[in-house]
Amino acid sequence: MRKISLFIATSLDGYIAKPNDDLSFLKLVEKQGEDYGYAAFTNTVDTVMIGRRTYDYVLKEIGPSHYDNGQRDVYVITSTERPQVGRTIFYTGDITELVKRLKSDKGKNIYCDGGAEIINELLKHDLIDNLIISIIPVLLGSGTRLFKDGRPAQILEFIKVKTFETGLTQLHYKRKK
Amino acid sequence: MRKISLFIATSLDGYIAKPNDDLSFLKLVEKQGEDYGYAAFTNTVDTVMIGRRTYDYVLKEIGPSHYDNGQRDVYVITSTERPQVGRTIFYTGDITELVKRLKSDKGKNIYCDGGAEIINELLKHDLIDNLIISIIPVLLGSGTRLFKDGRPAQILEFIKVKTFETGLTQLHYKRKK
Repeated sequence: MRKISLFIATSLDGYIAKPNDDLSFLKLVEKQGEDYGYAAFTNTVDTVMIGRRTYDYVLKEIGPSHYDNGQRDVYVITSTERPQVGRTIFYTGDITELVKRLKSDKGKNIYCDGGAEIINELLKHDLIDNLIISIIPVLLGSGTRLFKDGRPAQILEFIKVKTFETGLTQLHYKRKK
Repeated sequence: MRKISLFIATSLDGYIAKPNDDLSFLKLVEKQGEDYGYAAFTNTVDTVMIGRRTYDYVLKEIGPSHYDNGQRDVYVITSTERPQVGRTIFYTGDITELVKRLKSDKGKNIYCDGGAEIINELLKHDLIDNLIISIIPVLLGSGTRLFKDGRPAQILEFIKVKTFETGLTQLHYKRKK
């Protein structure tokens, strides 16, 4: 069965962005030739789920090639219908239905690329299988939290930790069966 | 100069307790003969700072011997005066003044043993020198957060990570000068 994975960076105090979607803290760990396993990870997936706000943010900041590159199915979770763009589908239905359908399809794994709202919605329904969380050595003090209040408790299985010269620490967990 | 250190356990989603001060998640990593470096750490300190609620909680749950054992100076941060008990002093003044005074005194390091309110107050004033954070492999979903909103950003220096058989991961950072 296909798995859904998170692959996300957070500050030590649990923020994935400073206020106003400010991601400049990621520059602290930018290093030429170091992608922190991102390419290897994305090779394990052929489908991306992403919230509409995050999608629009990436479209504006990085450009359409990041998602709409024909390499992967991209499901943008939104309340507003939009026509499909290449392999990018704007999905307005129930998210748990989508996940159940995708998991029962054949294919590589599924990457949940945020934002926090969609991650927390999936966690509420115990639908995340793998968590790969990169901790940036900084306290941001305020911003968008990776984990929101009001989810059920969930025991994880620790898989491994990787450390990097920049001080980034990458924690790998999976859902306990 | 003496340093102030945190040594605290949190869930992966950043909670140090479930609602109603429920610390039962710590049982997930209990293992005979494994103290996760606590004894070695406490040997480096001779002074403890602790919030009044946490102090009362420990007094009720563990008993007076944990703090009032004559081994260390204990400063309980409180708004209500109480008479000193052995080396346990109830401190009602300004916390930054206390820290400045303690740091300029001779001695071993200072252990800030929580709770979240006092930790965040110290972080607001950039007064924590070392952070030793043990991540328990669980998502609690709600409870008392280690880090509260509304602190200044602060870059940290990553020192090391230790992993344990139980899945606990211990991250060591220090304040960047």
